[in-house]
Amino acid sequence: MNASRQGRRRLVVIGGDAAGMSAASQARRLRSAEELEIIAFERGRFTSYSACGIPYWVSGTVPEGKALVARSPEEHRAREIDVRLRTEVVELDPAGGRVRSRDHASGTETWTGYDDLVIATGARPERPPLPGMDAPGVYGVQTLDDGQALLDGLHHAPGRRAVVVGAGYIGLEMAEALLKRGYEVTVVNRSDAPMSTLDPDMGRLVHKAMTGMGIRVRNDEEVTGIRTGDDGRARAVVTEDAEYPADIVVLGIGVRPETSLAREAGLPLGEHGGLRTDLAMRVRGHDNVWAGGDCVEVLDLVGGRERHIALGTHANKQGQVIGTNVGGGYATFPGVVGTAVSKICDLEIARTGLREKDARAVGRQYVTATIESTNRAGYYPEAGRMTVKMLAERRTGRLLGTQIVGREGSAKRVDIAAVALTAGLTVEQMTALDLGYAPPFSPVWDPILVAARKAVRAVQERTG
Amino acid sequence: MNASRQGRRRLVVIGGDAAGMSAASQARRLRSAEELEIIAFERGRFTSYSACGIPYWVSGTVPEGKALVARSPEEHRAREIDVRLRTEVVELDPAGGRVRSRDHASGTETWTGYDDLVIATGARPERPPLPGMDAPGVYGVQTLDDGQALLDGLHHAPGRRAVVVGAGYIGLEMAEALLKRGYEVTVVNRSDAPMSTLDPDMGRLVHKAMTGMGIRVRNDEEVTGIRTGDDGRARAVVTEDAEYPADIVVLGIGVRPETSLAREAGLPLGEHGGLRTDLAMRVRGHDNVWAGGDCVEVLDLVGGRERHIALGTHANKQGQVIGTNVGGGYATFPGVVGTAVSKICDLEIARTGLREKDARAVGRQYVTATIESTNRAGYYPEAGRMTVKMLAERRTGRLLGTQIVGREGSAKRVDIAAVALTAGLTVEQMTALDLGYAPPFSPVWDPILVAARKAVRAVQERTG
Repeated sequence: MNASRQGRRRLVVIGGDAAGMSAASQARRLRSAEELEIIAFERGRFTSYSACGIPYWVSGTVPEGKALVARSPEEHRAREIDVRLRTEVVELDPAGGRVRSRDHASGTETWTGYDDLVIATGARPERPPLPGMDAPGVYGVQTLDDGQALLDGLHHAPGRRAVVVGAGYIGLEMAEALLKRGYEVTVVNRSDAPMSTLDPDMGRLVHKAMTGMGIRVRNDEEVTGIRTGDDGRARAVVTEDAEYPADIVVLGIGVRPETSLAREAGLPLGEHGGLRTDLAMRVRGHDNVWAGGDCVEVLDLVGGRERHIALGTHANKQGQVIGTNVGGGYATFPGVVGTAVSKICDLEIARTGLREKDARAVGRQYVTATIESTNRAGYYPEAGRMTVKMLAERRTGRLLGTQIVGREGSAKRVDIAAVALTAGLTVEQMTALDLGYAPPFSPVWDPILVAARKAVRAVQERTG
Repeated sequence: MNASRQGRRRLVVIGGDAAGMSAASQARRLRSAEELEIIAFERGRFTSYSACGIPYWVSGTVPEGKALVARSPEEHRAREIDVRLRTEVVELDPAGGRVRSRDHASGTETWTGYDDLVIATGARPERPPLPGMDAPGVYGVQTLDDGQALLDGLHHAPGRRAVVVGAGYIGLEMAEALLKRGYEVTVVNRSDAPMSTLDPDMGRLVHKAMTGMGIRVRNDEEVTGIRTGDDGRARAVVTEDAEYPADIVVLGIGVRPETSLAREAGLPLGEHGGLRTDLAMRVRGHDNVWAGGDCVEVLDLVGGRERHIALGTHANKQGQVIGTNVGGGYATFPGVVGTAVSKICDLEIARTGLREKDARAVGRQYVTATIESTNRAGYYPEAGRMTVKMLAERRTGRLLGTQIVGREGSAKRVDIAAVALTAGLTVEQMTALDLGYAPPFSPVWDPILVAARKAVRAVQERTG
């Protein structure tokens, strides 16, 4: 119960994936086991794995699930991090500086004191309370166990019809995976175009490409339930308008912060349900409680407001920041600009910054520019199309956001805009950017430059 | 002789490639033929072509040379730009506001007056005055005519041994092209590693990869001449140390500004022999004379000094700026950060900012960080290696330069650093960059972030 003994401090980590174990590892790098005891509770069976890799495991692109594990519990233990698997923290007591955990195997409950606590409980997939949502044949893809369950399900599926609910990153990646597995894929989407993290005009390009890949996309349809057969298994996805027969149903309808423990403990949550932290990733108002990863809200540096974005790259950075601070160093996570990239088959999709509706929501007036270009010099073989949309602030011309849909080389080009957003560049400044040019990699005017030039004209045309 | 008639102004352009024709086209966009007459003199037979594409034409990747022509003389003429091919300007008279041109076919010489003059005379390949340099079988690759001559030469080559002199971008691209054409390729290089635009440690990675491709690379060898046979044809490349038998010799030893006319006319040249302009691309001290492209010097924004960089992307931007200003608008070319990308077979090479020796030359003290990472998540198929080297300023931690050598996705990643250099970011600021992450495109820590983190530690370790 007493955290410190003989001057040694104790760090307790809740959650053994990206944020939690990055924090633990970084703290260990800075503090020896003599100085700092580290205990990590993980309710599952794995540590430090790439949930983002699950679609590629399901597709067969990555042959084995264990390949997604960046660092196993044994590897962490070898570095004197006391990883306790299948052990779920069921209560936080910030006032008492302790957590209560339950060992899944024995059912035993234990209180463990801490000097510093890291909450890295992640996110849980949305699973709307509709009939049939928990039926056999309906799968989420959040954890490695989910991935294994889905792969097992594919082996036993009675037929080859798959319905994916949701047309965001996970939905699209799962649609590709199922296509590769030989399924006939229908994607049911509640928005008016796939990829609602893009503006609808860009989402429609994704829709068109998906149709070309042989995927059936149904927009503007809200799922009302899953119809099950006499054996209780999922048979069809039902919407207000139609019913889509399904041998397999995959849910890709987003995630929400897993913060029920934090809520019960009275820790501060934001409007998206994520923990609120300061720039050092300390939970606001709690000196020795830290949080990172999918369970926190992050500051959107362009929109000037908090958002919830579940992404391994943020989780790793935040864990690193926490570990540095717990270890006695100094680091901050200043926020995000909202960059995300994905692909479906050979179509790459990227976004950063504000969409039109985000700009309106935060009170920024804007102009837009959309251009068509290619990923290589036009004469170079396999030059493929690339569409770039840019938003710039009215009058100031400051870049507000960029969306890209196109062939190879489209996705990571968004990084140019991500850095420009971070630095607060105007689209006029962007027209002079010294970007890499060679025929295999870009037209002589990089598509980002072409878009920036058009955005400058749009800013100029809308005077006043 | 009198430029203006009935209030119509006349723009004369010398050089029909990227900078010249971009200037002409942009001026035409802003000013009709009633307002502005545009005459463009080009001594060759083509306009607006991509010299950067020549290696891919020679390799057979691009089937036809005419594919490299972005806009033909006829297309320019259709937009009321009076293109005069095979017509060489042989004298500038800035005081008189006129140029003297010679028609290659007839030999006729004519004076043409101008209100505005654009000098876009490009660069000429270095061809050291050594024995045999002009022998049949020795080829440059600067113009479309050069490319055609080389292709013809390949058809008639007596054997399959090719020697490329120079191991910069052009040398490497030509080595790849000749390899694809079935040649046994030797690259003779005067520096201690290929790609002297990189630091030697990074250049050695290129060397190793080239050797793996079956290319023989000879460093630290100065060519002393070309040995010719009884028929006068090149037979071997001779250095101080050795002699390399050659059925074809390709020169890729860089270019210098083609500014002999400008020099004779007393226009200001810089230490690299290029024209000096202001930010609007006006030749210094001459109100109505503009210059852009490979014949000018550019400001290196990181090094704070002038450089000569022959690159189509700068030429296009500068032409655009000139055309805008001549047309009555306002635009500037603020300078470059020194970004360049290339590839040889499946190895991508990129650089931006200062090398170690550049930093020393301009008086900036620095630390370096070099990291090994991969272009995709490590578990993703075909994840390939990527090495990133970063230079950061001592104490301030400001990014000074980045070099990348690696597999697919390496080259254009340098754009991240190019924007960071433009914005003056520190490597610490870069560690928080919100870069796109998905397993097919990046490890969860993008290699740029890994390098920035290591550079931060290097800055911290060198205190004071």
